[in-house]
Amino acid sequence: MKGLWRGLAAFGLACILVCGPGSPGGARAEDGYRLWLRYEPVEPAHRDAYRALAAGLLPAGNSPTLQAATAELREGLSGLTGRAVEVVTRADAGVVLYGTPAASPEIAALGLPLEGLGEEGYLIRSVRIEGRPVTVIAANADRGVLYGAFAFLRHLQTRGPVARLDIRSAPSVRLRLLNHWDNLDRTVERGYSGQSIWDWHRLPEFTPQLYADYARANASVGINGTVLNNVNSNARSLTAPYIAKAAALADVFRPYGVRVYLSARFSAPVEIGGLPTADPLDPRVRAWWRSKADELYAAIPDFGGFLVKANSEGQPGPQDYGRTHADGANMLADALAPHGGVVMWRAFVYSELNPEDRHKQANAEFEPLDGQFRDNVLVQVKNGAIDFQPREPFHPLFGAMPRTPLLLEFQITKEYLGFSTHLAYLGPLFEEVLQADTHRPRPGTTVAHVVDGRAFGHQLTGVAGVANIGSDRNWAGSHFDQANWYVFGRMAWDPAGTGARAVAGEWARMTFSNAPEVVEPIVEMMMGSREAVVDYMTPLGLHHLMGTGHHYGPAPWVSDLARPEWNPAYYHRADAGGIGFDRTVTGSNALAQYAPGAAAAWADPATIDERYLLWFHRVPWDHRMESGRPLWDELVLTYDRGVAAVDRMAATWASLAAHIDPERHAEVSQFLRIQQAEARWWRDASVAYFREVSGRPLPPGAPEPAHPLAWYQAQSFPDAPGHWD
Amino acid sequence: MKGLWRGLAAFGLACILVCGPGSPGGARAEDGYRLWLRYEPVEPAHRDAYRALAAGLLPAGNSPTLQAATAELREGLSGLTGRAVEVVTRADAGVVLYGTPAASPEIAALGLPLEGLGEEGYLIRSVRIEGRPVTVIAANADRGVLYGAFAFLRHLQTRGPVARLDIRSAPSVRLRLLNHWDNLDRTVERGYSGQSIWDWHRLPEFTPQLYADYARANASVGINGTVLNNVNSNARSLTAPYIAKAAALADVFRPYGVRVYLSARFSAPVEIGGLPTADPLDPRVRAWWRSKADELYAAIPDFGGFLVKANSEGQPGPQDYGRTHADGANMLADALAPHGGVVMWRAFVYSELNPEDRHKQANAEFEPLDGQFRDNVLVQVKNGAIDFQPREPFHPLFGAMPRTPLLLEFQITKEYLGFSTHLAYLGPLFEEVLQADTHRPRPGTTVAHVVDGRAFGHQLTGVAGVANIGSDRNWAGSHFDQANWYVFGRMAWDPAGTGARAVAGEWARMTFSNAPEVVEPIVEMMMGSREAVVDYMTPLGLHHLMGTGHHYGPAPWVSDLARPEWNPAYYHRADAGGIGFDRTVTGSNALAQYAPGAAAAWADPATIDERYLLWFHRVPWDHRMESGRPLWDELVLTYDRGVAAVDRMAATWASLAAHIDPERHAEVSQFLRIQQAEARWWRDASVAYFREVSGRPLPPGAPEPAHPLAWYQAQSFPDAPGHWD
Repeated sequence: MKGLWRGLAAFGLACILVCGPGSPGGARAEDGYRLWLRYEPVEPAHRDAYRALAAGLLPAGNSPTLQAATAELREGLSGLTGRAVEVVTRADAGVVLYGTPAASPEIAALGLPLEGLGEEGYLIRSVRIEGRPVTVIAANADRGVLYGAFAFLRHLQTRGPVARLDIRSAPSVRLRLLNHWDNLDRTVERGYSGQSIWDWHRLPEFTPQLYADYARANASVGINGTVLNNVNSNARSLTAPYIAKAAALADVFRPYGVRVYLSARFSAPVEIGGLPTADPLDPRVRAWWRSKADELYAAIPDFGGFLVKANSEGQPGPQDYGRTHADGANMLADALAPHGGVVMWRAFVYSELNPEDRHKQANAEFEPLDGQFRDNVLVQVKNGAIDFQPREPFHPLFGAMPRTPLLLEFQITKEYLGFSTHLAYLGPLFEEVLQADTHRPRPGTTVAHVVDGRAFGHQLTGVAGVANIGSDRNWAGSHFDQANWYVFGRMAWDPAGTGARAVAGEWARMTFSNAPEVVEPIVEMMMGSREAVVDYMTPLGLHHLMGTGHHYGPAPWVSDLARPEWNPAYYHRADAGGIGFDRTVTGSNALAQYAPGAAAAWADPATIDERYLLWFHRVPWDHRMESGRPLWDELVLTYDRGVAAVDRMAATWASLAAHIDPERHAEVSQFLRIQQAEARWWRDASVAYFREVSGRPLPPGAPEPAHPLAWYQAQSFPDAPGHWD
Repeated sequence: MKGLWRGLAAFGLACILVCGPGSPGGARAEDGYRLWLRYEPVEPAHRDAYRALAAGLLPAGNSPTLQAATAELREGLSGLTGRAVEVVTRADAGVVLYGTPAASPEIAALGLPLEGLGEEGYLIRSVRIEGRPVTVIAANADRGVLYGAFAFLRHLQTRGPVARLDIRSAPSVRLRLLNHWDNLDRTVERGYSGQSIWDWHRLPEFTPQLYADYARANASVGINGTVLNNVNSNARSLTAPYIAKAAALADVFRPYGVRVYLSARFSAPVEIGGLPTADPLDPRVRAWWRSKADELYAAIPDFGGFLVKANSEGQPGPQDYGRTHADGANMLADALAPHGGVVMWRAFVYSELNPEDRHKQANAEFEPLDGQFRDNVLVQVKNGAIDFQPREPFHPLFGAMPRTPLLLEFQITKEYLGFSTHLAYLGPLFEEVLQADTHRPRPGTTVAHVVDGRAFGHQLTGVAGVANIGSDRNWAGSHFDQANWYVFGRMAWDPAGTGARAVAGEWARMTFSNAPEVVEPIVEMMMGSREAVVDYMTPLGLHHLMGTGHHYGPAPWVSDLARPEWNPAYYHRADAGGIGFDRTVTGSNALAQYAPGAAAAWADPATIDERYLLWFHRVPWDHRMESGRPLWDELVLTYDRGVAAVDRMAATWASLAAHIDPERHAEVSQFLRIQQAEARWWRDASVAYFREVSGRPLPPGAPEPAHPLAWYQAQSFPDAPGHWD
């Protein structure tokens, strides 16, 4: 089947020369469906050079994955060069030859250095075959060839140099997964882009082109697996009808190297299995899961495995039966092991019955279990110890469980960063976490090194991102949120080596334009955008100040929720005497969960990076900041800096009107207007509240909040999206 | 702003000659977003003639509505002719001149017969201006011009003759409305096409191109109003923030002649007004609604009015205070009257406390109120007395309230006709109702004549359709369900004069192809499709046999629901002695609610049109049918006929593979496979159940159901779409 953009590219082939950029009719309307895979014609100056690289396609084989590579190269190269690029039968000058040495004597004869590339890496190289210049995309397996095809296209889309190509890449992480928090009724927990794209009711029969395009988009950034259903899961997803539905998706995804995983409800043996218990040590329970695994693999031979949220936020788990997380994970791991599946067991646990700082609870429960998990278990750890805040220090478990593979979980959907209407590029957030120094086992060992396995010698490695994908026409809810899907995939491929700024540039070029007058301002907007959110929502280490339930908007005043650690006041602890959470030795001492070298950098309020000040310290309102200003003044000015940054983004975007197609320009402009208003709302509500608590006047020049505090406290948002089941 | 297809058309202009149909690259991929407004290039044989009609555009004025007409004509004529059609400054040969005589001396000088066209009618005529051939689209107001522009394009899209154009049309119904059953949380009651397109959370700031395209599509078929929110309504939709959101939509829709209406919750004065009562005779309540109307009209000067579901299925209403429906409607009418708004008061009422046949309850409540409503009230009556069944006799209220305008409510979304996966063209259903003879005040007075006002001399007239529109890329959930939106609009324009078959042909030509080898089979599929659904779901007058709650699939065995009239068994009354609902004088005598002439046709089971047999009569299983077969055998054979009809549709569609773009062909094929399976399910489950009840063997040759009855009874569908709040 052919997708929308595939068909349009074919349709447009003969037209591109006539109609190319700048032709009468103006910019082509864009609704975002094509993502970064637009393959618009290159500028005339590049056309000849690109055509010389795209005289024909010569696949070495005919597997579904190679067919997918051929389809992508045909569409991409045809679109870029404005000339139909078709499959040919021999390696004439300018042909793209792609496949494995095993399948192609011509590739084998080139003697390419493919060792170390594994099954997913690739090599793209300009070579000569019988004297004729040829581009070869070679790999050890067809999946690597497909990734190479996408990389070749990306290189051209971003106007990389085309002379003497020699591009080599292999993923440094094995599992690169999306986590969908999608429910069976098509609601999406913390989803801001419409419904779930999984139309469970009409599956397995109905598999629209959307699903193949989803797999294509993932493959283009190296994502090789997807957990279809919410971690707050429904046992029904493990029943035979739903397994058949998941299998239909797996069939669509398979050519693109994307495996299907499922969130497993720990109590499923009771709910759908008719057993009286889900005790992981009960032989009947163990047999039930083994049988369920057999059933899954009969339907989905390459099923990836289970993701489990257990004994967390009301989910059932092994502790219900007096067993440990390791008991639970290992029981599932034993069921999956004969088939090669993995268990991803989430460390996101905390309990209102535990008076300890929530920051410490995951460590307290999991660190002692290190070494007790089966070989096919990964413990899945959020990037920070609280919950996907705009800024958190890295999670102290990274480095603390050397004998256990830790799978890093990022959140791509922006639950705490303004939903899909706020422009916030997450690349800098991801990079900040990945580059953080755990000091374990020694200084210089970053979170990325823990995740990619090199710190402690793990082969089973993974990174997961909570998906921001939904039924909206632009997939992600906003055009700029596509960049967060993109950068997640690119960083998961090589967590230690991928830079946020470089990826922003790639994405902007592919998504909007290669013109420097477009790329540079967009990259600047993106690179500053997450810091702006931090500044207008949760400056200087504040965190978890959002509205109850929906997490929409500011609510630092909330202190009456049933569970203490659900209350914003639990986190900021502001009163007349000061503000901040003391996590040093005089307080909860969460700092002690970090390696001494890491903790040292945060231990002293006089020397700490002030972006983390109130995360780790409670300080008086007149605490002297680096700037020389008292904390209260600095806090207000930081809020204002965030608001001003959004205003600058809006001005930058407005200045690009002539360079961006009208539909996307208008949508982004409308969203920036929302963000400008909501940044002020966050700032004003927070300043009004902390002013009242602190009893301090606004610093000179700081604007008065638009409304009295009571107005902000009276707001309610019963229809805010992303409901929590 | 420019929409996707608008931009594509502009983009494609210079390409169309090169790439037209059949060009290399194959059929253009289609995702259905463009609906019937595709404007694909005409066949070469027509090209010169069409170009001669499209030398340029000459609008007489610059109102937003005329700008919309210009945009549509530019896109449409450019697409059809493959040549850029632009605005010109004088009436040269081949120009399209459009506007009102008031705005254009040239149009005035033509002396066209525009009387009787009102503000929405139009005249399209080939004329000569200073000897040069010109096409004029003339009307008394710009809204009529816009409708004329769409009609001109439709005429060309369907390859109408272009010599000596003389097309004149005016709507015979004043209010032609969609009713959205959309909730504020974006769920849609009985919606099968994704989420609500109304993104309340991001309104009023965010108004994507989708909303303008929605208005365009409606205008193209003459729909001139839309009720945004569910009749099971939330008072919050009348608060200031939601009024601002509705106003933003109204601003987008206004140029297209589409007015906004809201469903009003009768208890809103209590829920959001802080009053202790919603009693319609209480002065505080009356003042609250007057003030609310003032507030609405300040935000939306052309606000249409309120739709109200009161004292029905748990909704609040005037009877809660001992008042009548007329009291309630008139109170709202008085609030709206100063602004020109209307109240549409639904007659869909029934009560479990009323032991009377549900069929009779609306009549019993409303007929006595005739003459008691204000001039700006319409009573909104569903097409039949039960609830949008695959086939119902027309509602007995039509003709029974001569002094009250009755607004006919159809259901476009297919709650009872297989959701969006079953191909069922509703044109024949709509036509059957509209052409039904009420015999009031005299034989030959059809439902259409009641609705269009001529039967009793009403000027205020209306037709509403419960929308099938959602966030799915193809708008309606399936490509063929677009036809139901289309035919609703076309029939609402002229209920008495529009034929289902002609409209099917129009739609198929605009949506798929003008090739006779495509149009004819598709029209045949469409025209037989609704009867197939009747046959495999509810043959011979059976009704209301669907599953509980979600209404998905068969459940004739259900008899244990709390309210008697919610049970399928209430409606079929099958036991060993026979089947059917006796609504004659020996039973509920619902027949007596019809005019004697209408009732006579249904009164005798020996002479009744057998399609209504079990609706009006309870008969023994061996009742002799016209065919000579006993009822039981006929029933089973009718089920089988429905199943066979679906198989034929699937075969027909498969035969069209070479003529339809791959994406739409594949989607429809997958849906037809679902329909084939579900038609068998309906047949098998129903036959298994009625066999058990009747104790009769299957007729010779009838296949055994695939499963035993208990299997069908055990099915459950917790994730079926279209939830009911």
